[in-house]
Parts: sequence; C-alpha cells; structure tokens
Amino acid sequence: MGSQISIERNQNPKPKPDQSHLGFGKYFTDHMFLMDYTKEEGWHEPRIVPYAPLMLDPSAMVFHYGQAVFEGLKAYKTKNDDILLFRPDKNMERLNISNERMNIPPIDEAFLIEAIKELVRVERDWIPVAEGTSLYIRPFIIATEPCLGVRAAEQYTFIIILSPVGAYYPEGIKPIKIHVENKYVRAVRGGTGFAKTSSNYASGLKAQIDAAEHGCSQVLWLDGIEKQYIEEVGSMNVFFKIAGEVVTPALNGSILNGVTRDSIIRLLEEWDVPVTERKISMEELYLAYTNGTLEEAFGTGTAAVISPIGELQWTDKRIVVNKGEIGVISKKLYDTITRIQSGQIEDTFGWTVDVGAIHVP
Amino acid sequence: MGSQISIERNQNPKPKPDQSHLGFGKYFTDHMFLMDYTKEEGWHEPRIVPYAPLMLDPSAMVFHYGQAVFEGLKAYKTKNDDILLFRPDKNMERLNISNERMNIPPIDEAFLIEAIKELVRVERDWIPVAEGTSLYIRPFIIATEPCLGVRAAEQYTFIIILSPVGAYYPEGIKPIKIHVENKYVRAVRGGTGFAKTSSNYASGLKAQIDAAEHGCSQVLWLDGIEKQYIEEVGSMNVFFKIAGEVVTPALNGSILNGVTRDSIIRLLEEWDVPVTERKISMEELYLAYTNGTLEEAFGTGTAAVISPIGELQWTDKRIVVNKGEIGVISKKLYDTITRIQSGQIEDTFGWTVDVGAIHVP
Repeated sequence: MGSQISIERNQNPKPKPDQSHLGFGKYFTDHMFLMDYTKEEGWHEPRIVPYAPLMLDPSAMVFHYGQAVFEGLKAYKTKNDDILLFRPDKNMERLNISNERMNIPPIDEAFLIEAIKELVRVERDWIPVAEGTSLYIRPFIIATEPCLGVRAAEQYTFIIILSPVGAYYPEGIKPIKIHVENKYVRAVRGGTGFAKTSSNYASGLKAQIDAAEHGCSQVLWLDGIEKQYIEEVGSMNVFFKIAGEVVTPALNGSILNGVTRDSIIRLLEEWDVPVTERKISMEELYLAYTNGTLEEAFGTGTAAVISPIGELQWTDKRIVVNKGEIGVISKKLYDTITRIQSGQIEDTFGWTVDVGAIHVP
Repeated sequence: MGSQISIERNQNPKPKPDQSHLGFGKYFTDHMFLMDYTKEEGWHEPRIVPYAPLMLDPSAMVFHYGQAVFEGLKAYKTKNDDILLFRPDKNMERLNISNERMNIPPIDEAFLIEAIKELVRVERDWIPVAEGTSLYIRPFIIATEPCLGVRAAEQYTFIIILSPVGAYYPEGIKPIKIHVENKYVRAVRGGTGFAKTSSNYASGLKAQIDAAEHGCSQVLWLDGIEKQYIEEVGSMNVFFKIAGEVVTPALNGSILNGVTRDSIIRLLEEWDVPVTERKISMEELYLAYTNGTLEEAFGTGTAAVISPIGELQWTDKRIVVNKGEIGVISKKLYDTITRIQSGQIEDTFGWTVDVGAIHVP
C-alpha cells in the first residue's frame, strides 16, 4: 500500500539540531504525512509533503469542540543502521479505540503502519544516534470541518509529524517526586480517560502546576468517584512493588492502556515476577509504606520508558520509596526495554518492527 | 481602547446568504478579530482583518493537548437599526473563568467587549433581520505554541468570528425529546464541567448519537459520581417546574454557569415565581411525574434561548411533560427574553448593550 503514498520532497531542508540538546518535541523534521477524510470520499489522498503550517478555517471544529486524538511512538537507529519501531501495531490499535470514543472515522491500521514506515524512511537522516535519543513519531487527527454546530465533524485530517528527541535522563535515571492530587480529577468512568484525546491533557495542567508548587514534578491521579484508588501518574501508567508482587491499576475505562505498561506486564510474567492488575488505594499504599513492604514505584510511558518514583506526597503524609533510589526491578525493566527498542539485545517477543530500506527515490 | 484596534478592510466581500436558510454556524462574515499572546509581550496586536484561514504549525499545542476555550453570544438589530448585545459582560467574565481553569492567561474584560463591539460595527450589514435571526458571536482562544511537551503553552491566539444564524424554531417553538444518559459522563467534580472548554463538547458526542438512536434530540446528563442527580441537557442548562416551584441544578463545579440560566432566575424572581437552585435527582423528577406535579421542563442556552422538553426517556421509563406542549412559564420566559434581546420591550435589567455607531472609517 506504500505506493499509494505520494511524496513531494522538501527543497529547503533544515539544518539538523545538536543531538546533545534536543529536549522533547521542540524540533521537527523536513516532511510530514497528511491524509484527509470527507464523508463522500472516506480517508483519501495520503501524501508526504514538506513540513509546513496547516491552514484551517477559524471555524474548524477542532478549535471549538475538541475532536482530536493522537498517538506517540519512537523510531530507533541500531548500530547496524537498521531503523526499528516498537510495537506500532499497539499504538494504531489504540488510535482506533480513541477514534471510536471521539466519533472520528477509523483508519486501516496496517496502512497507518505503512505510512509511518514510509515517512520515517524519508526522514532516516533525522534519527539521532546519541545514547538515549530517538525519533519521536506523533500521529494525530483533527476535525477540520468549518462549522459551529455541536455534532461530530464530517471532515478530518490525519497527520504524522516527527521530532528528534533527547535522552529523557541526560544525567542518568533519577527518581521523581510525586504529588497525590486531591482536588482535580483527570477522568471518570463514562468519560474519555482510556482514549488518547487532547482534552485529557489540558484538563490536567492545573494539577501539574499545583504539583510543581509542592516541589513535585508529576501528579498522581486518583479515581474521580471516591478519590481513593490510584489511576495514573502525570501522563504515565504507574506500578508498585509490594512484598515481592508488582501491582498496577487495572484498566477500568478511565486509565490509558499504555504500550509500555503492557510490555512491562509481559516482561515480568516472562521473568516469573508476580504481577497483578487490580484496584489499589492510597490507604493500601500508605500501609505498605508504613509496614516496610513498599519496595519500588515507577511510572511508565513512551517518553521516559520507566520513571522511578522516589517520593509521594499525599495530603500531609510522605511516602519515601526505596530510600529515593531506583529499584532493582525498575532498573532491569528500563535496561531491557530500551535495549530491545534500540536493537542491542534480542527481541524474543516480536515487538520491534524494521522500517526497511527506502524504496521510493 | 477601541482605537488600539487596527482594521484591515476585506476588499473581496462575500455575497450575504439567504436569511431564510441560515441554519447555525455555517456562514461567516468578511472580517475577524485577532490578538496574540506571548510570554514576553502579553496580549498584543489587536486587529480586525479579512476572514481567512489560520496558519498554525502542525505541532501547535491546541491540536495535541486541547488548551482551548470559547464563548457564544448574539447581536440583534432592532427596528430602529440599533444593534444590541445581550449581557456581554457575563460572557467575558466566564471566558476568564474558563481561562483560569485551562491555564490560559486572562484578558481584560472591558477591552474584550470593545473588541466585540468594534467587529460587530464593521460587520453591521451582516446582521440578519428576519424574525428569530441574529448574528452569532464566537470569541475563542487556542494554544498556538509549536511544542509537544505536556505543559501550559506560552503562545495563544484570541479570535472572534461572526456567523449570521437562523431562527432556532423556523416552524414555531416545539418541545424536544430527551434521552437520560446512563453510560457516558459529561463532567465530574474536580474536572472542567464549569469551563467552556472544547473538551467538554467532544466527549459528549457519543451520547448525542446514542440519544438520536433512541429518537431523542438531546441528552440529559447526570452527575458523574452517583448517576442520579441532574446536571445539564445537551449543551444547555435545565429547569423543571414542580408544584409551582421552578427548580434548576445548583452550580456545583461540573455545570456551566449559563447566561440565559442566570437571566431566567432573575426574571422569575422579578415575577415572584418561586425559583430554587438545588440538587435534583431523577427519582424526584419521576416521582413528581407520577404524582402529577411535574408541570414544565425546559433547557436554556444562547442558541435556543428556551427549549421546552416534551418527554424524557429514563432507562425503561417515559416522562411526558405537559402533554408534550410548551408550558405557560416556558413561553413567557422565551417571549420576554427574546423581546428584550431584540429591543421590542423595555430592558429594565440593564442587560442589553448598544454597540453604537461605527467610528472607524
């Protein structure tokens, strides 16, 4: 299907940024992938074109009613100059789950993976190779129909942009402080918490700023009903190791089904480490802390892979995890996943997908 | 402050649409108002320019993380050719409340009203005059910074667009059927329900489609915690007249503080009709229906002003209100508000604001 994609080359490529100061999502490559949807034609005109501003009518529905979904994954260049994607099928499956919730027409998942591969092949020289760096891939869909009626749009654009990103931990992996959020709610049963839709992020900004004021870099979200059960940390899933068992909140409709989360569960099962998806309350966590059975805590997501948690602030209580150091399992998971992603160790799970050689001149 | 606003005239004005088929939010006028925000300059460069597409980087944060707020109000042309706005101060006050929740920098409210007046003066020939028509005013703010980091943006654009809109009831006011939503949730305490942010609308689309499948035109939203207490109807506030008393859900943080809602409460107080803002459950409503004390029900909002409810479908129960006819109070409220808005009767509340004569050539 790749041959359906037309390619217009950028005649004015940008200079590549310094690989030691990439940060996250600040630099973008020379091309982007676009595809439009209309009710009459369905998804059509897949094309790779020079990276450029989008032109949208001021009444485009995305600006007013927030019909927008996205995904995030990464491409890595191996020592042999191969380019690997990590489980892109899971991201594209989730994109359609998000589409379904937000009333956006679905897209063929195999074609989406082809589109990603083709764009990454075109931009292969943009993939950074310094330790911990990668090419971040951001597919997203926005409602473009120019109309102020409150209803599902009849026109959309699907876009993929690419951003070379730096190592998440340029000075080595370091546990973070977390503020347990008691006022704001990220998501509730019946809402959009399981979908990767723009609104889940804007609504959490205020809590993020509150967390920073408490000297914390992230928020731990509790359930919207009882404000007791743990849901996510910032924009990551969360895991705790308690008395030898690794526990993560079950997918209950308000939690994102993270690709890294799923990979961790499968790795732990492979290693015969007990791992359970279930409800876990702050009371239980605090009790485990006080009786000395809380061994490790970490967030998981595409950006950081593993983000160890050194401390949680819950009302007036403080929970210090593993003396503020990264735990053994956290470190092993981080090393294993990042090495699979970058082709440094064998991928026995079939998770990595080789982008292949460029076949379009 | 109006003199700060630069005006670039559109040299290619569009033909005006047929006033008998305007619909809602489908046609836009020849000009728009723009103003930008940067961290360094604050809100700056207020300008009226020809209506044209917005050019935004594909990484503009609004597309990814949904930082977007909006307002909706109307301008009416009176028989004397004056142009009236209805309570624009309330809308601009609410815009800043929405801004605060969504971490968007506030804007001076008096200046916003001047901006609306100036744009409406420029577009005065676009205001339709047929019965029930008006010029809909849509101020909105979007995060424009090109960055994929999950944080509050540091660049925004404030925009006002105008749309001539048709009569909400071209064939006379007609009660609607409502589906009481039991699966999806619009908002929850600690969320963004009280803010006019884009995400509150996209998340409700699925329920709207479910309602349509039940032969209903709107959704009645229940609270996200117990799914018992009534919150809003579609994108309107809701009122019930029970045993002579008019009841509307209290503003609890998940309900929008509607300008029409507030106007209705004040009119009812003026008329000595008992009106109460409080929690009201579906059980209570159903009981009132079964014992014959449910007299009227209606939604309220800028688009329809009053939308009488003829029937509610709640699980397997049906609640028919006033034999499916518009009630006496509903009709009196509709007539009074629309006549105040269009200058047909005296405005003893000081709600209407005259846009004034154009003072820029």
